[in-house]
Amino acid sequence: MDKKYLDVCLTPALIHLYNVEKYVVVIIDIFRATSSICYGMDNGAEAIIPVAEVEECVAYKESHPDYLVAAERNGEVVKGFDFGNSPFSYTREKVAGKTIVLTTTNGTQALHLSRNAKQVFIGSFLNLTALCDKLRTLNDNILLVCAGWKYNFNLEDTLFAGAVADQLKNDGYILDDPALGALDLYQCGKEDIRAYLKKTSHSERLKQLGIEDDIAFCLNVDITTAIPVLQGERLVKLDLSFQA
Amino acid sequence: MDKKYLDVCLTPALIHLYNVEKYVVVIIDIFRATSSICYGMDNGAEAIIPVAEVEECVAYKESHPDYLVAAERNGEVVKGFDFGNSPFSYTREKVAGKTIVLTTTNGTQALHLSRNAKQVFIGSFLNLTALCDKLRTLNDNILLVCAGWKYNFNLEDTLFAGAVADQLKNDGYILDDPALGALDLYQCGKEDIRAYLKKTSHSERLKQLGIEDDIAFCLNVDITTAIPVLQGERLVKLDLSFQA
Repeated sequence: MDKKYLDVCLTPALIHLYNVEKYVVVIIDIFRATSSICYGMDNGAEAIIPVAEVEECVAYKESHPDYLVAAERNGEVVKGFDFGNSPFSYTREKVAGKTIVLTTTNGTQALHLSRNAKQVFIGSFLNLTALCDKLRTLNDNILLVCAGWKYNFNLEDTLFAGAVADQLKNDGYILDDPALGALDLYQCGKEDIRAYLKKTSHSERLKQLGIEDDIAFCLNVDITTAIPVLQGERLVKLDLSFQA
Repeated sequence: MDKKYLDVCLTPALIHLYNVEKYVVVIIDIFRATSSICYGMDNGAEAIIPVAEVEECVAYKESHPDYLVAAERNGEVVKGFDFGNSPFSYTREKVAGKTIVLTTTNGTQALHLSRNAKQVFIGSFLNLTALCDKLRTLNDNILLVCAGWKYNFNLEDTLFAGAVADQLKNDGYILDDPALGALDLYQCGKEDIRAYLKKTSHSERLKQLGIEDDIAFCLNVDITTAIPVLQGERLVKLDLSFQA
């Protein structure tokens, strides 16, 4: 292709500004949905089915009693569900060989809005370099979709978008203004991302929920090469032995 | 008040996420609407009436032949209008004592969406410090509304929001994530804002329109103390002798 673009959609509320069909999309919801999804894939989950509503999770559980159901609203596990968004719920003991139906506050909605893209990947610091290596081989337009917080911009997702832009910045992509901004914010925070994010309101909110360990875990870089990819309605682990 | 907030709305497409009635709003459209409005006020314009549509400008001209009409779409003067968005159209010779009806691509739409705020001011680098001094005396919640580019984030408006946050950061405001991000981007660019903005796509677009002189002018800091304020449907110069 003549020109290729690396664009960043800062919140799902802006996704209508992009023609998603022209992009490979990466969904980003660092605290904590996409980090947990990557970790679950790494730990052998067979599939993760993202759904928009808690009621859809319930319906899946009724038709597939063997599925695990995960639901979170406003950072807390919905009553009666197996678990929510904590990466520590996605250990090998719990998820190996299992299918999980997941709904979260922000992440799965971003996913649903992106489903018409060429491909939809899941990104997090946990699989950062594997993801960037894959994107590089595709040589296509990339749209990084930040799930944000309640449809607004948040720093952690934007910083991760900047980390991807940083790895790909010398590969011939044209960056839009949100990507340029994300890249510079990553430069501001990269030396100590956890310390950098401590100033955010979201960090304070998560602290009050008692999930500081989750946050620390979600900022681990490159602990897996698993790349979750959307196939139909299911997220499965990308088979890296078949390179595009 | 107990707590006061300094929030940044990165594009007009996100303004529904804020309850504008609770804020003093500043509209930001650096290239070039709000810079030109500040300059026009400084040069004695009696009033500037922002309207959303070109047709409204035409209607005003028919009912008030003495009004000047200014319309810009996609960075260019609309045919048949007195002028567009260039600050050099807002000199004392042209605008002193005049009323101007203005519609632009992004800026006036941001204004219309903010009209229910406690007060609506117009901000630009030209009146940065005067504006911040005024905001400080109001001791109220502040929402900085970036006009952006075609409803998306742009760097120049965000950088200016960061410049405001930088002047007010020690005055007890709680900053939301977009404000924190804007503040850090301002730190990245403040040493040479013009050079910093050269990398943006918008800069390239404006260059092709042959308005590099406009851009340089819009980045002049503190050349006026005029603060345009919305009164009914008209922007007029805030009378600084009546302090709140």
